[in-house]
Amino acid sequence: MAKGTLEEMIRQLSQLNSAGMYLDDFLLTWDRSDDEIAAVFKTAEVLMEMRKENISPRIFDSGLAVSLFRDNSTRTRFSYSSAANLLGLTVQDLDEGKSQIAHGETVRETANMVSFMADVIGIRDDMYIGKGNAYMREVAESVSQGYQAGILEQRPTLVNLQCDIDHPTQSMADAMHLIQHFGSLENLKGKKIAMSWAYSPSYGKPLSVPQGIIGLMTRFGMDVVLAHPEGYEVMPEVEAIARDNAAACGGSFSKTGSMAEAFEGADIVYPKSWAPFNAMEKRTLLYGDSDMDGIKALEQDLLAQNANFKDWECTEELMALTKEQSALYMHCLPADITGVSCVQGEVAASVFDRYRDPLYFEASYKPYVIAAMMFLAKVKNPAEKLTQILQRKERRAS
Amino acid sequence: MAKGTLEEMIRQLSQLNSAGMYLDDFLLTWDRSDDEIAAVFKTAEVLMEMRKENISPRIFDSGLAVSLFRDNSTRTRFSYSSAANLLGLTVQDLDEGKSQIAHGETVRETANMVSFMADVIGIRDDMYIGKGNAYMREVAESVSQGYQAGILEQRPTLVNLQCDIDHPTQSMADAMHLIQHFGSLENLKGKKIAMSWAYSPSYGKPLSVPQGIIGLMTRFGMDVVLAHPEGYEVMPEVEAIARDNAAACGGSFSKTGSMAEAFEGADIVYPKSWAPFNAMEKRTLLYGDSDMDGIKALEQDLLAQNANFKDWECTEELMALTKEQSALYMHCLPADITGVSCVQGEVAASVFDRYRDPLYFEASYKPYVIAAMMFLAKVKNPAEKLTQILQRKERRAS
Amino acid sequence: MAKGTLEEMIRQLSQLNSAGMYLDDFLLTWDRSDDEIAAVFKTAEVLMEMRKENISPRIFDSGLAVSLFRDNSTRTRFSYSSAANLLGLTVQDLDEGKSQIAHGETVRETANMVSFMADVIGIRDDMYIGKGNAYMREVAESVSQGYQAGILEQRPTLVNLQCDIDHPTQSMADAMHLIQHFGSLENLKGKKIAMSWAYSPSYGKPLSVPQGIIGLMTRFGMDVVLAHPEGYEVMPEVEAIARDNAAACGGSFSKTGSMAEAFEGADIVYPKSWAPFNAMEKRTLLYGDSDMDGIKALEQDLLAQNANFKDWECTEELMALTKEQSALYMHCLPADITGVSCVQGEVAASVFDRYRDPLYFEASYKPYVIAAMMFLAKVKNPAEKLTQILQRKERRAS
Repeated sequence: MAKGTLEEMIRQLSQLNSAGMYLDDFLLTWDRSDDEIAAVFKTAEVLMEMRKENISPRIFDSGLAVSLFRDNSTRTRFSYSSAANLLGLTVQDLDEGKSQIAHGETVRETANMVSFMADVIGIRDDMYIGKGNAYMREVAESVSQGYQAGILEQRPTLVNLQCDIDHPTQSMADAMHLIQHFGSLENLKGKKIAMSWAYSPSYGKPLSVPQGIIGLMTRFGMDVVLAHPEGYEVMPEVEAIARDNAAACGGSFSKTGSMAEAFEGADIVYPKSWAPFNAMEKRTLLYGDSDMDGIKALEQDLLAQNANFKDWECTEELMALTKEQSALYMHCLPADITGVSCVQGEVAASVFDRYRDPLYFEASYKPYVIAAMMFLAKVKNPAEKLTQILQRKERRAS
Repeated sequence: MAKGTLEEMIRQLSQLNSAGMYLDDFLLTWDRSDDEIAAVFKTAEVLMEMRKENISPRIFDSGLAVSLFRDNSTRTRFSYSSAANLLGLTVQDLDEGKSQIAHGETVRETANMVSFMADVIGIRDDMYIGKGNAYMREVAESVSQGYQAGILEQRPTLVNLQCDIDHPTQSMADAMHLIQHFGSLENLKGKKIAMSWAYSPSYGKPLSVPQGIIGLMTRFGMDVVLAHPEGYEVMPEVEAIARDNAAACGGSFSKTGSMAEAFEGADIVYPKSWAPFNAMEKRTLLYGDSDMDGIKALEQDLLAQNANFKDWECTEELMALTKEQSALYMHCLPADITGVSCVQGEVAASVFDRYRDPLYFEASYKPYVIAAMMFLAKVKNPAEKLTQILQRKERRAS
Repeated sequence: MAKGTLEEMIRQLSQLNSAGMYLDDFLLTWDRSDDEIAAVFKTAEVLMEMRKENISPRIFDSGLAVSLFRDNSTRTRFSYSSAANLLGLTVQDLDEGKSQIAHGETVRETANMVSFMADVIGIRDDMYIGKGNAYMREVAESVSQGYQAGILEQRPTLVNLQCDIDHPTQSMADAMHLIQHFGSLENLKGKKIAMSWAYSPSYGKPLSVPQGIIGLMTRFGMDVVLAHPEGYEVMPEVEAIARDNAAACGGSFSKTGSMAEAFEGADIVYPKSWAPFNAMEKRTLLYGDSDMDGIKALEQDLLAQNANFKDWECTEELMALTKEQSALYMHCLPADITGVSCVQGEVAASVFDRYRDPLYFEASYKPYVIAAMMFLAKVKNPAEKLTQILQRKERRAS
């Protein structure tokens, strides 16, 4: 992408209205205006270019970035940690345990107890349908109350690092990858992206990636196709958002039960496994009852159900159906690669291998997207501040 | 509290003699002079106000704050981490395991090995009567020897984050809460505080909170009443300190076997569960022998013993006995709230709920108390340094 | 050691050619030239003296130091963490689990995913013969590819924190201890060092310490004697390196099956347990097959084999054989001390006790050695940069 100079990028940012992000959280991409979404991309680009030019964009002399991961996560953890560190914050983990789902007073108390010197709280809570995003909103409300009561000297900003509904840091990084690949946000208009279910021998992958993709990519005038076997529906309210977006932005949103149909003429393919919505709902109830036998039984059922759709694999044959046989293959990683990480999986080894560098690029934007979300929530005049940073010329590595 | 300007607060600090804290540890409040105690409050106030005014009080460009928690701890961990971060130190956890109680050479070796670049060591070791504070003193002596031998380039300062005898960061934060609530340290004179045992369905809570409270609050001319059922005595040596303090400072220290008597006319109530001293001694021996069956049996006995005193609950009826029916309710959190976190617990839900904001304020002072302890141990002329910090106007968040 | 002023030390550094270390990894001491080895010592000395004089050598305003420890490690973890912190980097742990040995694509993917903002990667992977160093080289190649493809904005430097072949941060810290003890690197010429196996009641200690010692100390014109019972041979390729070094540097490398013979007239003794090479190879295969019963059986065999050589203990009698009965006793710690940490172990309590301070000094150089390795890999003109640091007079603790 022709980005132009840092000065030019900052000038472009200054023309976007991101005031609504200041002191606010980033929980769902569809909560944010088009200008705000564009401001995140632009700020991320600026921060990335600054780091390349060895300019430190540090804006904190001290402060904590609280992290709460209910699930193991190497990639998102490093992305969050990198973003916090770039801006001058120190990560402090809040280790609440995987299965413990706190409610009401407990959430309110803990949220305040960890926030006396916290500027940001990043939460990954993607395991339970109907819970993850609701938990984030409880935390958000709790710290708002604490701030209003004068208990918290500042209100920490929440960043959704993946919930049951959306995975905004992933979908935004994915979009940045597309912007880089196709040259500009405007160039995405009219491109066809196939967000397709794919077979995996593993169990219970969250729905937030496909939901995040259809909820975001429909805003850019793209033709978004969601493909999955029967029983693997995503949340209807997110489909509704995708439909509304498409109607408003001049693109389209459609569904199909055929991977081949989705791939046909696609500019971009995103084949990825996820669990059936119903099963995720059941699992949430089973976890609520601590019914470990029930969970094991459900897991067996799910694996059996998945096994009916082993032909949902991103093969060379399917790739040959795409635009000029060379659609951009995307994945949030790690992928289940046939013959490499499993006997049969989401993608053929030869396809994955060909796109390895692009996949790594795709992942490389996430730390900057997170840093941009933090920056826009914490800095009142982002373009002005970035100009100051540019002028002070503090080196990141001396 | 009318605090006046930062300049005025720093002037007040300059009139206190805290020289004895420089390069020393903070292990027990009763090891410290009245001026030193007052200096911690004043420094904590200054640091808190500085952060509110976005002034960074960072005094380290690098350096480690070692943390050793033998027990899980969200609140104290975040407080310690926040304090270290505010001053520019990075927390590095020393994970020695819960049950391992190192002695002699092992302590000496480990203490030196982790201290080559350590400025502070924070230890929480509250589980074993007769062990926690003794362990801290072993670490303190070890790093003194290492420093004298020239092995350690600086001697790290120890901060007691809770031991078997005292919980100074808690009691000092609690006192700061009272100072803020009643307007000044002087205003605490003559106030009645009821430190009372309360029923909890959980097991083996440390004695360091009630001990810390009676050992500290008796210094401010307060009328301190300790209430508990028979069998829940605290350490006699701490009671002796409380008596001596009261005699020296014009307040009083008394004991009662009735929660109602303690609450009668009280300005402040602090109802909280703790384990019987004898049981804690037994547990220490059982742990020493790795007698897990014995520990389980002891636990059952303790729960049964606790259950005899389920009426020791801070109810609305008891609160009605207090001064103007509106004593300040305190707790170190988390509390066992009847009908909320347990069937029957330390406090009625309606009482707890009414005091939620004050309770969060109470907790909010701990990071600043810890930071003040570090600051006074590391800075030779604290008032002068704070004046410099005020003048250099480094922003915490830009 | 007469070190002279910081200016003089920096001048000495400027005369050493360490250009080959810039942007390179530190995996094996024998990969590095004599000038490079000397530059690490000199830089470590400068950094140590700077910290003593309260000068901050921070060269990063932000950045991550990734750590991957496949084994528990308090000492090395704190050393790495201290070094990173001194230079301005924040440690982020990569928790891959003990038993998981990733290969090929997985290594490549993970290495890139954690490196978007990483300046250094420190790895300790010492448990499997033939695996640890190979894994490091896979990571090194992966980040090189990522950097060349433009995915990584900088190529993180690898530091070997212990592998199956070498333990360069230990052997370099040990050598620094000898330099300090004997006054200069030149003074080590002609000194006799006995690297001897010793009995331990524990199982499977890595070979990297004896290998690191014979591979490094033979470069300084020392007489290096390796002593061990039959069956405790080290890797033949490292013995070959030791022999070649000795031939090139005017010292000697010899082997003996007698601890007494090794100690005879020695200036330095380094008695330490390690596992038999064959057993470590077997263990690697068993771990590869997840054969936990096989591992347990092997452990029993090893302990029985060790028990044949309980007389390999560093006693006062053996110490009496050394040069003027007062050889310098060394150990990487923790040691198995007879009657202290075990019934019978590597060293008599009276011997260990007499050398406690020297042993702590020995350990104290490791953080500085690691920091020097990082510094020389990240700074193009180290002497010039250190001069700038000296002139800017940023205080570490204010």
